Amino acid sequence: MKVTLSALDTHESSFTPLVIIELAQDVKEETKEWLKNRIITKKKDGGAQLLFRPLLNKYEKETLENQNLYLVGASKIRLLLGAEAVGLVKECSDNTMRAFTYGTRHNFKDFDDDNDDFLSMAERQFIIKHELENLRARDEKMIPGYPQAKLYPGKSLYTDLLSSWRGLLPDMLITCLWEQVRRLLTSGIVVQVFPLHDNEALKKLEDTWYTRFTLKFQPIDRIRGYFGETIALYFGFLEYFTFALIPMAIIGLPYYLFAWEDYDKYVIFASFNLIWSTVILEVWKRGCASMTYRWGTLVMKRKFEEPRPGYHGVLGINAVTGREEPLYPSYKRQLRIYLVSLPFVCLCLYFSLFVMMIYFDMEAWALGLHEDSGSEWTSILLYVPSIIYAIVIEIMNRLYRYAAEFLTSWENHRLESAYQNHLILKVLVFNFLNCFASLFYIAFVLRDMKLLRQSLATLLITSQILNQIVESLLPYWLQKKHHVRVKKKVEALKADIDATLYEQVVLEKEMGTYLGTFDDYLELFLQFGYVSLFSCVYPLAAAFAVLNNLTEVNSDALKMCRVFKRPFSEPSASIGVWQLAFETMSVISVVTNCALIGMSPQVNALFPESKTDLILIVVAVEHTLLALKFILAFAIPDKPRHIQMKLARLEFESLEALKQQQMKLTAENLKEECREGGKEKVP
Amino acid sequence: MKVTLSALDTHESSFTPLVIIELAQDVKEETKEWLKNRIITKKKDGGAQLLFRPLLNKYEKETLENQNLYLVGASKIRLLLGAEAVGLVKECSDNTMRAFTYGTRHNFKDFDDDNDDFLSMAERQFIIKHELENLRARDEKMIPGYPQAKLYPGKSLYTDLLSSWRGLLPDMLITCLWEQVRRLLTSGIVVQVFPLHDNEALKKLEDTWYTRFTLKFQPIDRIRGYFGETIALYFGFLEYFTFALIPMAIIGLPYYLFAWEDYDKYVIFASFNLIWSTVILEVWKRGCASMTYRWGTLVMKRKFEEPRPGYHGVLGINAVTGREEPLYPSYKRQLRIYLVSLPFVCLCLYFSLFVMMIYFDMEAWALGLHEDSGSEWTSILLYVPSIIYAIVIEIMNRLYRYAAEFLTSWENHRLESAYQNHLILKVLVFNFLNCFASLFYIAFVLRDMKLLRQSLATLLITSQILNQIVESLLPYWLQKKHHVRVKKKVEALKADIDATLYEQVVLEKEMGTYLGTFDDYLELFLQFGYVSLFSCVYPLAAAFAVLNNLTEVNSDALKMCRVFKRPFSEPSASIGVWQLAFETMSVISVVTNCALIGMSPQVNALFPESKTDLILIVVAVEHTLLALKFILAFAIPDKPRHIQMKLARLEFESLEALKQQQMKLTAENLKEECREGGKEKVP
Repeated sequence: MKVTLSALDTHESSFTPLVIIELAQDVKEETKEWLKNRIITKKKDGGAQLLFRPLLNKYEKETLENQNLYLVGASKIRLLLGAEAVGLVKECSDNTMRAFTYGTRHNFKDFDDDNDDFLSMAERQFIIKHELENLRARDEKMIPGYPQAKLYPGKSLYTDLLSSWRGLLPDMLITCLWEQVRRLLTSGIVVQVFPLHDNEALKKLEDTWYTRFTLKFQPIDRIRGYFGETIALYFGFLEYFTFALIPMAIIGLPYYLFAWEDYDKYVIFASFNLIWSTVILEVWKRGCASMTYRWGTLVMKRKFEEPRPGYHGVLGINAVTGREEPLYPSYKRQLRIYLVSLPFVCLCLYFSLFVMMIYFDMEAWALGLHEDSGSEWTSILLYVPSIIYAIVIEIMNRLYRYAAEFLTSWENHRLESAYQNHLILKVLVFNFLNCFASLFYIAFVLRDMKLLRQSLATLLITSQILNQIVESLLPYWLQKKHHVRVKKKVEALKADIDATLYEQVVLEKEMGTYLGTFDDYLELFLQFGYVSLFSCVYPLAAAFAVLNNLTEVNSDALKMCRVFKRPFSEPSASIGVWQLAFETMSVISVVTNCALIGMSPQVNALFPESKTDLILIVVAVEHTLLALKFILAFAIPDKPRHIQMKLARLEFESLEALKQQQMKLTAENLKEECREGGKEKVP
Repeated sequence: MKVTLSALDTHESSFTPLVIIELAQDVKEETKEWLKNRIITKKKDGGAQLLFRPLLNKYEKETLENQNLYLVGASKIRLLLGAEAVGLVKECSDNTMRAFTYGTRHNFKDFDDDNDDFLSMAERQFIIKHELENLRARDEKMIPGYPQAKLYPGKSLYTDLLSSWRGLLPDMLITCLWEQVRRLLTSGIVVQVFPLHDNEALKKLEDTWYTRFTLKFQPIDRIRGYFGETIALYFGFLEYFTFALIPMAIIGLPYYLFAWEDYDKYVIFASFNLIWSTVILEVWKRGCASMTYRWGTLVMKRKFEEPRPGYHGVLGINAVTGREEPLYPSYKRQLRIYLVSLPFVCLCLYFSLFVMMIYFDMEAWALGLHEDSGSEWTSILLYVPSIIYAIVIEIMNRLYRYAAEFLTSWENHRLESAYQNHLILKVLVFNFLNCFASLFYIAFVLRDMKLLRQSLATLLITSQILNQIVESLLPYWLQKKHHVRVKKKVEALKADIDATLYEQVVLEKEMGTYLGTFDDYLELFLQFGYVSLFSCVYPLAAAFAVLNNLTEVNSDALKMCRVFKRPFSEPSASIGVWQLAFETMSVISVVTNCALIGMSPQVNALFPESKTDLILIVVAVEHTLLALKFILAFAIPDKPRHIQMKLARLEFESLEALKQQQMKLTAENLKEECREGGKEKVP
């Protein structure tokens, strides 16, 4: 994809464009010039030392729109040095994983001075993003042309240039309309920075991934090579989770087919489920460690985290870094969390329960009406409460998401990771209640198992189908239409420019932005809830989940490849807070399943005279299961033995290196001591 | 305590003796010579470069016993370099904690080239121990004089020389008789290695610690300076735990005084207890982090752990270190653990329950006999079962301890830490059952709250009193008698030798060895069980525990200072696995307390017609409390904010240093790139 430029107004004659920067339409010339200078200036003079040129040259600009698009690339050596700076870990010729350094580059597997394949395109784009993010203000007090955009030495330029853009990033509602509004609202200088797709590689990836529908493993390593570790881990988890559900689905099937209702079979199924869900979560940790070790992210050193863009406060000296940056006292944040956010969340939860009660009232009222009149019309009326409730839930989820984002922003967390954790926690709790409260109510207050089974099935299946359509197929269709429109437009132009690249950039810049794996994990999390919380009542849930996930893999893959802009690769070593969320869900499901079994008429029939004994036995079993879960989680090591060994070897080597260094020092110092000792003896 | 030697047969004229090595009586001359050489040889020639001399010179030897005692010391610079090698962390002049290096020694607080106080005596002794442990075989194939003691390059000499001694270390039964037997059994070359007391410093420490009985905080920092971090942490935890129990004791007192029996008061007390026990354990973690940060052990780098002495297997290449060492496949260890140890432990637990049942049968039989006859004699008989049971429990505990040590040894763990964890787990489970099974039986099977209260009080108080006598006072008395004997003997000698040092060494070498904090923590752990498991039945337990601990501090202090040999200081950053043990106990106590409250007649009276509702409410409350506990444990950060900040600062600095280094490298490499780029342009 090496392009030769028709124009010669940049100082580099040709480079592979990796990242696109789109500036706002009204950016002043001096600002553009300054930005360009900062990007191409040598590293030692405080620049990023990257390659940079406009997508269109001066002459083309006159006739075309999109004059505000710039291509960024980097020379090969610059990228290798960048790989060292971001701490990329690669496999050596001796099969160990080591942090890449330019000096030792020839020790690494597949490294070849004449070959570009050593760094994947995703890695190269990640390096460029890292370099752009690390551009810092030097002596300039403000952005040229924008006197209101104050700078101070060491302030990240990226943050400031993109502030309005990044500030909007967390909202995860993705619609075409929204994209348009967001554009209009943007008042920053840079509208967006995004990595280019590599059409050839993408085609290849798609061929092995989802275009041919066959039952096979996903090419996780290729996905990682193209989209980075975070997204590959999501798809890895999705696949693993699907396979892990298969035994549950298979065991659940005969319960449905033969309508088994014996209590002992239920108990066996539920016990299996509970132990199984613990085991699969533990085993995933191990698999994940193996995978991320192979990718190098498991041993990648954590970088110091910079404050997140939205963070504000009084300018002061950070006690950790000693740098000037906004400070915000932690006790104020705690006050905001515990005095505002927490009560607000509780209120929302209460409101959600309130809405649920209204729904059940409406349901009862509709049923009453139908029974009174018995006409056709009122039988349709029976569905109205469910429909209204479903819509209201959806609206509440969306509204709550905005509120949660606003509150979490307002809590003013210094780090992006803290922000994300607090946001995830808020959203998870609310979504959990919204999705499951009615089921809990049916199960434990109404105690109507038939209704529970029915509601569970309806909720599970409709949510799965809706999700796939709204999430992937609809956007894909819209995207396709847009594609045709752009293609026509480009073809209409006389081809005095590199039409392929131009078309690609223009197409991709209008694509939606993929806002992280949050929604995808949330969907899986809720699915896990449907499958495990009431598994002993509806053993078929696992089978539906498996079916859904088999297609989900494909629709998610389509979404990643064709609907959204290519996301920047993000190194990660695990699925993070989601592991904890899934584990919590499996603990809750022990409690619910034990309670459900205890309530089943078959089990109750065994204790005809004493309900007390029944309850005590159920509670004892529940406690035993919980204890067993914790012991299992404790006894299964989080990392497979061979990974532990490799990590121990890495640690040992670094300790040995340190020791060697010290031994040399000691020997030198002891020589000195002898000399000093000699002197001491004289007087 | 600088001693000038009367004899001049060592190459150093005078040094402060820090550590004593006692060789076996029958060690050959060539072995002694070889050992001495290895200790005094220069570091670069593979020696330890320490100072070494016999306690007695040649002429004295003829007339005296104890010819096999040797003094080890080191020059000041050697010690400073050793401090660097062990990774000691010290406070700098700018109040940050940094790993000490000889090169930067002048940056450290209190460092003075002319002053010896920078390293505490405990630290100096720890450094010498570390250097002795790191003596490795070079080209010798066996220990001179002992052809059966095979060596291979890199094998730790310390391990081999001491093997028989260290192999016996884990047994924690301390009696004078046992000491004698152990001596006779020893077939190793080195009988023992122990650090000397510093009588002056010890006197000062005692004065501020326990000799004057007043209510005050312990001088934890001084204890740490004298005994090291592990022991200081034990005393810190003991003190903290005692203070933490005071609120529980105060709230519990009125229940006893006014005989409150209202259910609501019980519920309040139990709830307070449960939340309180969670909070104190979390807060301890924070206090512990503050303390160990101040001591430097929190930021001390973990060293690579060598295989423990007893570890055996086929000689092979360790995959981690690449060194030759015994290898033992992990699956074999797993098999031993799960197929032998686990069933054995279960069998022991079953046996313990069986014995308990016999005890209850005997009790019933004695009661029946007494009621039948009603005579004076049979009323004495009533106490017999309890006494027999108490004795049997004690015997079972001791026997089980041996079995557990044997089994854990046989499991052949490579690391001392793994060995300790497996041993602690085995012993804890058994002790827990032995101490609490009868109480559980009384509470939940017999449901006799009065008997429960009585048994609890008896067990708690007698075990506390017995412990203090057996553990400290009795050994102290024996020790004192021995002291007088030795003193007389030494005085009888003509004082042609340094009598003070000789007397001290001879005295201390006969003292018992302090075998780690295991027993002390176990005692506290069981006490915590008595206080929290049945707290709502016997609120006075906390008050007794407080009283006991106030004296326990003193008797333990006496034990450390006067009864045992000075132990080697051991750096540690937390109380380790005990934190987990205490947390588990507090989880169990939630369950027991909820059950007890649910069973109380007052609460039962509230639900006259429906026992089911009662149980459901109790279970709901229990689950809520457990959830609350986990949320609390999650919400309270493990380290106080200021420690987090300081740790973050340290990490940031090391990352920055790395970055600076890379920047320099990058700049150099980019220059190279320019040159290469220039070359490329030519053709």
